Amino acid sequence: MSGTVYLVGAGPGAPDLLTVRAVRLLGEADIVFHDALIHSQTLALAPQAQKVAVGKRCGKHSTVQHFINKRLADAARRYRVVVRLKGGDPTLFGRAQEEIAFLTEKGIATEVVPGVTAALGAAAELKVSLTQRGVARTVVFATPRVAPGEPPSNWVPAVLAADTAVLYMASRDAMFVTAELLSAGLPGETTVAIAHNVSLAASSYRFGMLKDLPRLAANLASGPALIVIGEVLRLAKWRRTAEQLGSWNDVLSKIAAGSSS
Amino acid sequence: MSGTVYLVGAGPGAPDLLTVRAVRLLGEADIVFHDALIHSQTLALAPQAQKVAVGKRCGKHSTVQHFINKRLADAARRYRVVVRLKGGDPTLFGRAQEEIAFLTEKGIATEVVPGVTAALGAAAELKVSLTQRGVARTVVFATPRVAPGEPPSNWVPAVLAADTAVLYMASRDAMFVTAELLSAGLPGETTVAIAHNVSLAASSYRFGMLKDLPRLAANLASGPALIVIGEVLRLAKWRRTAEQLGSWNDVLSKIAAGSSS
Repeated sequence: MSGTVYLVGAGPGAPDLLTVRAVRLLGEADIVFHDALIHSQTLALAPQAQKVAVGKRCGKHSTVQHFINKRLADAARRYRVVVRLKGGDPTLFGRAQEEIAFLTEKGIATEVVPGVTAALGAAAELKVSLTQRGVARTVVFATPRVAPGEPPSNWVPAVLAADTAVLYMASRDAMFVTAELLSAGLPGETTVAIAHNVSLAASSYRFGMLKDLPRLAANLASGPALIVIGEVLRLAKWRRTAEQLGSWNDVLSKIAAGSSS
Repeated sequence: MSGTVYLVGAGPGAPDLLTVRAVRLLGEADIVFHDALIHSQTLALAPQAQKVAVGKRCGKHSTVQHFINKRLADAARRYRVVVRLKGGDPTLFGRAQEEIAFLTEKGIATEVVPGVTAALGAAAELKVSLTQRGVARTVVFATPRVAPGEPPSNWVPAVLAADTAVLYMASRDAMFVTAELLSAGLPGETTVAIAHNVSLAASSYRFGMLKDLPRLAANLASGPALIVIGEVLRLAKWRRTAEQLGSWNDVLSKIAAGSSS
């Protein structure tokens, strides 16, 4: 009788954005196989478990994936509760399918625990509805990334057809993304944002227009990043500008106060 | 000095699919304004708070929304922690924007706590990647619903352009959805599913082809439902058939065992 492998979403980054079910399973886990970018406080929720880092989600080779599959199966033969902890949600750009298929074929039980995906973490920090009434009724989550031998992604027509788009694993290809979208007819003035380190203390947002995207994406520090595209961002961009203007007015007031004192 | 209004995602339905942050805020809340379909155990996480049901998310009129906005603002003037608890995630078909804009204009602080959206809850129960490698690199979340006076939704081209689609607030319009997608050229044999009461004990899934969608959506009991469209469902459909065949084989074995004894 083998244990169960739980594919668990760790959410966008902040440890308190895990679900209650995820926290409970981490507390019960005998062993945790985790992505590279999981917060140390999240891993600390499984103090008794052996922790195994199994690399980044992005740019992983299929041989590496096969190695992970085998390690999960081996662990399920030795332990009762095996947690495979994935950034965001396991069913969205998380390669859950490969692991579930492999384990099921070996007769090993699996469960999937959904998580808060990074796009929703970003929308929450920006206080922006991805489907704001009157502006957007459709949102697409897409990636331009494909593995070698895989059919090309249809991300360009999907981004054009939807009101709001969030691109995962795309910020390093910002030049390519911009060129493809411009040549497909998306206006260079379309509002875009780069969301970096969503939900963490180090989170940052850069706003601009599609034509500026390569510049916005340049010199990002390490950490996961999303590209968000669509008019729902305008409100967040204005708010940010107003806040900066507010701070600037504060500076001006202080200078004025200083010069008059 | 007024309190803060927290727009909090309650996740797909199961109380343990709330985030840790959501649970903490419910525990601190002075008053909770909640959607109609929130689980009683979820509301029980705020035993000390006054609870106010503010109707379904679906089919709400804008006058009702204005009334909710005003009640939130009034509460923020009286209480320190006001929670607006929404099914799923607040920024995805949750009308967060109207509430944030109204409260911000009144000078009331807001925070958004993201949640697990129903589509990801369904994918977890089905053990299906919405973006399975080699099959899907794009997923669209859309709704055909618009308020009176709002521009029409572009949900049809978005569904056609994406590999996987999840339609929110659409199951009662299954006839219309099917007709629109068929006339736009989506093959009648496209795999679809209806996900009903996602993540709850009463959850159920019905699989079929696009041309069968009106029949699949008929006679659904009350409770929220999603329409999922795309080839990533094939695996779940096969698995379900295999399970049913397994049960059927069990029945046959029992009959055989009974007749031989």
